[in-house]
Amino acid sequence: MTYCSGILVREGLVFIADTRMSAAPDDFSTYRKLHLLVEPGERALAIATSGNLSASQTVINFLHEGIENPQTGETETLSSVPTMFRAAQLIGRAIRHVRTTESEAFDWARLHFDVSILFGGQIKNGPMRLYLLYPAGNFVESSEHSPFLQIGEHKYGKSILSRTLHADIELYEALKIGLISMDDALRSNVEVGLPIDFVILRRDGLQVEITHRISENEPYFHDLRARWSATLRTGQQNIPRPPYSTGDRSPRRYSFLDSSGD
Amino acid sequence: MTYCSGILVREGLVFIADTRMSAAPDDFSTYRKLHLLVEPGERALAIATSGNLSASQTVINFLHEGIENPQTGETETLSSVPTMFRAAQLIGRAIRHVRTTESEAFDWARLHFDVSILFGGQIKNGPMRLYLLYPAGNFVESSEHSPFLQIGEHKYGKSILSRTLHADIELYEALKIGLISMDDALRSNVEVGLPIDFVILRRDGLQVEITHRISENEPYFHDLRARWSATLRTGQQNIPRPPYSTGDRSPRRYSFLDSSGD
Repeated sequence: MTYCSGILVREGLVFIADTRMSAAPDDFSTYRKLHLLVEPGERALAIATSGNLSASQTVINFLHEGIENPQTGETETLSSVPTMFRAAQLIGRAIRHVRTTESEAFDWARLHFDVSILFGGQIKNGPMRLYLLYPAGNFVESSEHSPFLQIGEHKYGKSILSRTLHADIELYEALKIGLISMDDALRSNVEVGLPIDFVILRRDGLQVEITHRISENEPYFHDLRARWSATLRTGQQNIPRPPYSTGDRSPRRYSFLDSSGD
Repeated sequence: MTYCSGILVREGLVFIADTRMSAAPDDFSTYRKLHLLVEPGERALAIATSGNLSASQTVINFLHEGIENPQTGETETLSSVPTMFRAAQLIGRAIRHVRTTESEAFDWARLHFDVSILFGGQIKNGPMRLYLLYPAGNFVESSEHSPFLQIGEHKYGKSILSRTLHADIELYEALKIGLISMDDALRSNVEVGLPIDFVILRRDGLQVEITHRISENEPYFHDLRARWSATLRTGQQNIPRPPYSTGDRSPRRYSFLDSSGD
């Protein structure tokens, strides 16, 4: 399993990815799922992958070595495409190419082809964008109203993102919210694991502002997790006790058919 | 979709269930998923169902009208079984019976048989228990360390349950935590919907302490949801800003192959 989120706000882009690779409960290890392609002043791109690792690594390699564009016959790489939209299309073609070439072998091994990719960044003279590519190679883009996308084990950590993120939030505040979201996923699914990689790309910077790997014992993340737990416990305690009264408590029979279908 | 949780603490049992039934995005309605079978002083049982409504309603009806016990040849109902364990076995047989009789028709309609059931309560002279029954009819029981079980859209609301619940928590505090968990599910999945049914069975009470349907505009639940949102926002704001520094900011190239596999 995996949990990665991408957040695109007015100031820029944050990508956060865990590193847990689990072939089986007794066989897990640490792999980078967050990949950067940066030519300062020209393009700053980030990719995070989830799903079968052999397939997602193969997709990444095709994006590096190139895939033929069926319209032009030219071989395109992520370093050569001129716009973010063309880049997303290229990644979609790479996913489809790998699915096609691997499908017979995947079927034989009863593996499910489930590569999903977060892709974001900026190419010179174009806007900053954030996309989610599905295993079919199709993709959606984030919106101002919903300025984040997630792949992998996304449900545990969704609540804090959808409750607090908006396009005007400061970039490091967005990073903090993404780390809280990661904490929820880390606590609920053992197949999401530390260390955590993140990157910040500032809008129009066309370079990496910061990229960092958060390890198990890093004080800031440790403190964030402890504070978040305390927030939830205190918040729960501060909500008034439910006011529902037991009424006259006179014993009453209930049958399954009393209330069916109401 | 559905979200139901059952919480078993030292003082008793709480069941909470939504009522949204969605055949399709343009066809949803309100159905009771929380069912009670109570003979005061003898037995107090609660069942919550998720999955295909026609199948779960059929299971409920079989539990009322009776299923043959293959060992004894007798017809058993939930009103006649002598222990909670035998009751859980009976529910498992009812699920298997419905799956067997419906499977050909479900296959034809390309429906997936996915009935899951929370079952809890107490029968005179026996302990209070809480079970989760899977679509295969097998079941697990809650534990003191993990005093809750969930069915349906369980991931969004799991974090608050696993962070705050323990066996010694007061019964109405457990209800409150269950309602916070329901709020997370309500916000994240439109197929989980108000009103909310809940019931409280106090240990050794062998009757209903309280059962109630929370409607859209009920002041307490409205206030709980607002306070919980405020808690999350304030908690996030009170966590210090991430300390990661941008370093010397000298532009650097990154290539996909820099870091593959680390």
